[in-house]
Amino acid sequence: MGEISNFEKVNLLEKANNIGKLFKYLEIGRLNGHVLNVLQAENRTLDFHFHEHSDELFYVIEGSFDLEFADGSATLSQGDMIIVPKGICHRPVCKSLVKCLLIELDGTLNKENTGGAYGGEFYDAKP
Amino acid sequence: MGEISNFEKVNLLEKANNIGKLFKYLEIGRLNGHVLNVLQAENRTLDFHFHEHSDELFYVIEGSFDLEFADGSATLSQGDMIIVPKGICHRPVCKSLVKCLLIELDGTLNKENTGGAYGGEFYDAKP
Repeated sequence: MGEISNFEKVNLLEKANNIGKLFKYLEIGRLNGHVLNVLQAENRTLDFHFHEHSDELFYVIEGSFDLEFADGSATLSQGDMIIVPKGICHRPVCKSLVKCLLIELDGTLNKENTGGAYGGEFYDAKP
Repeated sequence: MGEISNFEKVNLLEKANNIGKLFKYLEIGRLNGHVLNVLQAENRTLDFHFHEHSDELFYVIEGSFDLEFADGSATLSQGDMIIVPKGICHRPVCKSLVKCLLIELDGTLNKENTGGAYGGEFYDAKP
């Protein structure tokens, strides 16, 4: 469960800054069965994967990262958002430090598609 | 329908700046049956209302506004987000110019709860 009530304003950058660890997902709210997480990532490439049951929203709070697809890639910078439809193969490629918001249906993220970092454990970055 | 595919990055501030009119909802994406709209608002107070079937997410892209509830209010500024649970009575109070992102289930917003501005028509601001 999240540390906050849904019924409370949060500042995305403050939340992301207060995580204190790379690759740690911090739940900041819930919206109709969706989970909102912020995280910091750097110097890391996930494996290609797709989500069978949920679209996935990425929003860049600060920094930038690349999102690679089967047939191309997009560079997302501060203030950019993208929605990856369910079933679409993708992988985030984070070089420099990026702080992101992610929104997807509860149960979508797991150890298999988040490099083992989901669930609040610390992940030792292996470039 | 929105003007863009879901499968495309968008910059929230650019989208909001390009609307060109106050109180015009611009759809910028869809996420699992939810609609994402950006809009600009200024000098306007909505009536108190609630949404029976959907939580509602407000995110401030630029500027600030107040969100009033039965028992209090919150001032949201740039980078702040709040999720109003379904069934909770609320009203946005916009004094100075604010640019926002809203997310809620498709069909939640209508002419009754958006001051007649929903659907892309121009709304003449009446303070």
